[in-house]
Amino acid sequence: MMLKTPSEIDIVRASASKINEVDFENLAFGNTFTDHMLICDFREGQWQKPIIKPYEPFLIDPSAKVFHYGQAIFEGMKAYKDENDDVWLFRPDENLHRFNKSAKRMAMPEVPEEIFIGGLNAILDLERDWVKKGLGNTLYIRPFMIAIGSGVIAQPSTQYRFMIILSPARSYYSGEVKVIIAEHFSRAANGGIGAAKAAGNYSAQFYPQKLAQEKGFQQIIWTDDATHTKLEEAGTMNVFFRINDTLYTAPTSERILDGVTRKSLIELAKREGINVEVRSVLVDELVNAAKDGSLKEIFGAGTAAVVNPIVGFQYKDVYYELPKMENSFASELKDKLTKIQYKLAEDTFGWTVKV
Amino acid sequence: MMLKTPSEIDIVRASASKINEVDFENLAFGNTFTDHMLICDFREGQWQKPIIKPYEPFLIDPSAKVFHYGQAIFEGMKAYKDENDDVWLFRPDENLHRFNKSAKRMAMPEVPEEIFIGGLNAILDLERDWVKKGLGNTLYIRPFMIAIGSGVIAQPSTQYRFMIILSPARSYYSGEVKVIIAEHFSRAANGGIGAAKAAGNYSAQFYPQKLAQEKGFQQIIWTDDATHTKLEEAGTMNVFFRINDTLYTAPTSERILDGVTRKSLIELAKREGINVEVRSVLVDELVNAAKDGSLKEIFGAGTAAVVNPIVGFQYKDVYYELPKMENSFASELKDKLTKIQYKLAEDTFGWTVKV
Repeated sequence: MMLKTPSEIDIVRASASKINEVDFENLAFGNTFTDHMLICDFREGQWQKPIIKPYEPFLIDPSAKVFHYGQAIFEGMKAYKDENDDVWLFRPDENLHRFNKSAKRMAMPEVPEEIFIGGLNAILDLERDWVKKGLGNTLYIRPFMIAIGSGVIAQPSTQYRFMIILSPARSYYSGEVKVIIAEHFSRAANGGIGAAKAAGNYSAQFYPQKLAQEKGFQQIIWTDDATHTKLEEAGTMNVFFRINDTLYTAPTSERILDGVTRKSLIELAKREGINVEVRSVLVDELVNAAKDGSLKEIFGAGTAAVVNPIVGFQYKDVYYELPKMENSFASELKDKLTKIQYKLAEDTFGWTVKV
Repeated sequence: MMLKTPSEIDIVRASASKINEVDFENLAFGNTFTDHMLICDFREGQWQKPIIKPYEPFLIDPSAKVFHYGQAIFEGMKAYKDENDDVWLFRPDENLHRFNKSAKRMAMPEVPEEIFIGGLNAILDLERDWVKKGLGNTLYIRPFMIAIGSGVIAQPSTQYRFMIILSPARSYYSGEVKVIIAEHFSRAANGGIGAAKAAGNYSAQFYPQKLAQEKGFQQIIWTDDATHTKLEEAGTMNVFFRINDTLYTAPTSERILDGVTRKSLIELAKREGINVEVRSVLVDELVNAAKDGSLKEIFGAGTAAVVNPIVGFQYKDVYYELPKMENSFASELKDKLTKIQYKLAEDTFGWTVKV
């Protein structure tokens, strides 16, 4: 994939950079933003000229459909800097593809590659200094689209705003992650929007997650809403289970997000000779594997956290502690994946793209 | 219920009213707003002083959680003017109660009665001229709350904005409404947010609704997501079925909104001696009743449309036309309900509250 800047784009530079005010050693995830943002509006049936301008609040009508009907989607991506000060993206075509799949499901216009990828290239080129060298340092990228058309009637908007904002980041999670398996709440319906990165999917998890946290668990492993017997996602991540030496993860579906990290880990594991089975894992299966000692690992996979090892899970008031593995698949795969992302290992897959 | 204005509220009046620019005979639903809006922010763990000020766009950060995680809820209400120029609300306590139920499910702070009901009283008092006399004329009220705290991390916000905006309205729907019964898509998951008036529930319906409209249907009757055998809601309304002389509607649940119009119609029907059964109606039952002629009526019920008669439904590519009823329950109940709302009939239930 080639990154090209859009043929027409306006750039208004910030008068001064905020970069020297930022403590890059102590970044809370997602709270610090770079000097610029990209805005591109859709109106009268077409995308307008994108503009890159100083990051700042913008004006919006109180009746904008995003506020009332949640017509909003996003992506999560990262930029990495290698030892030669080159900036790299990881599989940006996958994010573009998924973004437009989300757009379709939410009755929003698709964003052309020239604006999404081209705009990303233009803004990242301007913000190169915000991508810091060193394993674990990244620039988190948040492309998103919101319905800005006004009117309190439950119909798709005719006006949209596509934006890209950038946030320097270190790691997403810290500390040990214990999870609880969902017995009542659920994340997605059959025939619903679970496979879309739609804004509403995330706030729907806040209350169940708060209840889990009050019980001492950092995340929830979601199960299918009809029977609560199949394991589906972990919080906002895809989830992998290692039983003996086989790695299992649920197939993507209407209820499960087609995660870029998920699919990359599957390919990487296969290359490393790890046996991977993409199929639904049942809660009973997991409990039995924990009891007989064949359950070795559980980990979440997503752009923000990359690989997030889980130390134990609770189901029906019983807590199952996982063994501490010397050579875990989680750490091996995380190591191999991040080395590709930071250009410290050869990218035999062709996943990395230079800005 | 007494309506009291909050003890502390700031009021900044518009310098001039837009009311003379509005064509009240030709109002598109939800597109025209009155001169003022109410804003009340929540920060540092508490609600601040509410302000009523001219209706206008406001500034918001691009990373506000409402844009990324859809943390947003709303209510729909109406104000009515009687023959004496008095302005009335219909069961506002029910809306407050449901709003705070939605807030809890979406991990948002509850809005105190003094702000929600008191604020409503204050802004309606200011906008009395916008409530027009005559059956069918209403002022549609949209209280809503959005997460305005910044940060692209999927966690509940710490800052919220509660607002009330007002839109003069005539009727919501026009023309004949044909519906299609959902066989694949669905509205809500078990253990999900279907019972909350959460923004994300509505945009999730836009795409399936667009597909239905392309086939010539105005609405979808939603079925349970697990089996698609139980009838649940019609578009954004609750749904009633009349088989012979019994009126059926699904019980409220995690998947079904506790509609104020729905519960009022049930009480009203019972008072009128209509046999009402609150239970799930199966798709098969509906199809069989349509075939043997015992299905007399289907209608949606909601604040915006009040009662919305449906002329026919499609299921598995077969269209079932409903009989044209001389004395339909839909028109009888709509007539009785609206007469109570406009103070043209005695309110034996104590549902109406004077502003």
